[in-house]
Amino acid sequence: MSALTGPVHVIGAGLLGTSIGLACRRAGMTVYLSDIRPHHVRTAGGLGAGEAYAGQPVQLVVVAVPPDHLAEAITAALQEGAVVTDVGSVKSEPLRQVQGDVHRYVGGHPMAGSERSGPLAANAGLFDGRPWAITPHDGSDPDAVELVTALAELCGAVPLVMSPAEHDLAVARTSHLPHLLASLVAGRLAEAPPEHLALSGQGVRDVTRVAGGDPQLWQQILTANADAVLALLEQVRDQLDTLMSAVGERSRDDLVKVLQAGVAGTRAIPGKHGGPVRPMRSVFVSVPDHPGELARLFADAGASDVNIEDVHIDHDPSRPVGLVELVVAEDRAEHLLTSLEARNWAVHR
Amino acid sequence: MSALTGPVHVIGAGLLGTSIGLACRRAGMTVYLSDIRPHHVRTAGGLGAGEAYAGQPVQLVVVAVPPDHLAEAITAALQEGAVVTDVGSVKSEPLRQVQGDVHRYVGGHPMAGSERSGPLAANAGLFDGRPWAITPHDGSDPDAVELVTALAELCGAVPLVMSPAEHDLAVARTSHLPHLLASLVAGRLAEAPPEHLALSGQGVRDVTRVAGGDPQLWQQILTANADAVLALLEQVRDQLDTLMSAVGERSRDDLVKVLQAGVAGTRAIPGKHGGPVRPMRSVFVSVPDHPGELARLFADAGASDVNIEDVHIDHDPSRPVGLVELVVAEDRAEHLLTSLEARNWAVHR
Repeated sequence: MSALTGPVHVIGAGLLGTSIGLACRRAGMTVYLSDIRPHHVRTAGGLGAGEAYAGQPVQLVVVAVPPDHLAEAITAALQEGAVVTDVGSVKSEPLRQVQGDVHRYVGGHPMAGSERSGPLAANAGLFDGRPWAITPHDGSDPDAVELVTALAELCGAVPLVMSPAEHDLAVARTSHLPHLLASLVAGRLAEAPPEHLALSGQGVRDVTRVAGGDPQLWQQILTANADAVLALLEQVRDQLDTLMSAVGERSRDDLVKVLQAGVAGTRAIPGKHGGPVRPMRSVFVSVPDHPGELARLFADAGASDVNIEDVHIDHDPSRPVGLVELVVAEDRAEHLLTSLEARNWAVHR
Repeated sequence: MSALTGPVHVIGAGLLGTSIGLACRRAGMTVYLSDIRPHHVRTAGGLGAGEAYAGQPVQLVVVAVPPDHLAEAITAALQEGAVVTDVGSVKSEPLRQVQGDVHRYVGGHPMAGSERSGPLAANAGLFDGRPWAITPHDGSDPDAVELVTALAELCGAVPLVMSPAEHDLAVARTSHLPHLLASLVAGRLAEAPPEHLALSGQGVRDVTRVAGGDPQLWQQILTANADAVLALLEQVRDQLDTLMSAVGERSRDDLVKVLQAGVAGTRAIPGKHGGPVRPMRSVFVSVPDHPGELARLFADAGASDVNIEDVHIDHDPSRPVGLVELVVAEDRAEHLLTSLEARNWAVHR
């Protein structure tokens, strides 16, 4: 049995590394930080994520560097003699290149992030309730797997143990393919006449949002997982050919099949944070668009003792009224509607 | 000059038709409703959207039926002798099939909707601040164009006049193509092992959300706009081939080009509701996950006199703390951060 007591050495004081440092410090452990950019160590240290590493012996090294530098950094980290993990988005290819006492290395990948990067975006709660893939290889020490699993739990995440190959297949499907197809859709927008884009609604914004990610980081991720990504792209090309025939020939049945497969796919995604999907319902309320009105709405919603699971606000800054969508458990929606109506809110039934 | 004074006859008392009826009633006009489903007329009437149509003379007919029935319904409506518009998602193909005094017909398409349908989902504010395409054809009477534009304005929308062909090219790019590629991504999820889907994050949820739409409605839309959709799918297939070569050959430069085009596309989308993009910044706050805490947060945010433009809540129902993202004007973010800190909120800098 190996309890996680620290010290922990975090290599790479960016968003993920600094957040892990903060979570370990919160648990009372000693954390050392290193980064090829010394100002990141100073910033992360200033946030309370740890102190600068100077060769001290540690229990666990966490490598949090970009994909291209993972194998090299893990190999170097193994020379410290401690258990080593990383937080890279792809697991198999770096593993193939790692050298040294690999039995002390266990890969990891927390499913958390932000559109922002760097230590200033970090927070100890980043991993709360998120899946964290733990990817031991055939030669990983059971004690090392246990230690890395303890790190995920300490960070508040839900550890999911799988092989590096399974992990890479999974993220190819749930992350890399969606990113690439979002880029293809967004690429067609870049070529569009501006007056056409004036008709953009929420749908195209949602589909393309991830395509705004950093191309330099993403080319590293995609290249490192090229085989799995390519296999899925080949399936997509086949489906695209089917789709083009269906559209070209106005074959409604074939079109419906593709669309139905899409509906089935959206329903296959588990609830947020990997839990079962709870039935939710949206309650729509018109809200005057000035400071204080949202507060009044949430106060009234809170007074009705209904927990708001999610919120969307849709309003035009130039107009006086916005539409607020409150997502609540299905069996609480009617009570919320009645409560808000009793308080004179313009709810939409 | 033809001022919109009514009566208005709405054919099809679903989400859009009933919402238009409510908006016209709000403006004091007489509204008549008809629908092949009599219970929809009763429901919409009960909501205050108008009364059952019984052959009364009207100023304007609004056809709000599914794409497959548009041309037939518009042709029949023209026999009432009034100006006729519709709210269909595709404009050229129905126009080709419309018969009668087509100079009194002017197409329209409000960029508003909901994942819900039917009269119960309707509300008078549905179109507030949304683009509403007005698509006169070469033979449309200027007075009829004016009347239909007045309807869009009365509903609170922003009218955008363009030809039916331009409209169809625009929505092929901003709506139909995103829907189809979202379906292809989602279709790959339907085939995935459940343990792989456990790694699903917010990105894949956003990319695939629209693919949950009704296949029967969407096959009608896509078939009616087949030429424009097919032309874009051909471009996507070319780009997909480029992408597959880039991934297969680990050609990082080619990969970056595709990804950069995607970034450019996401930036080309105008701000919500067609306005210019205002610089926004997100403020992240940890919030205990029970009723009343969100109210307290919004009360404190409101007291700081900063307008919240958008909100995202990310939390696991099984955990005591959630992360709330408040989106505010960039130049107000620092003030909000300081105000919330002064009130002891755990903001993330």
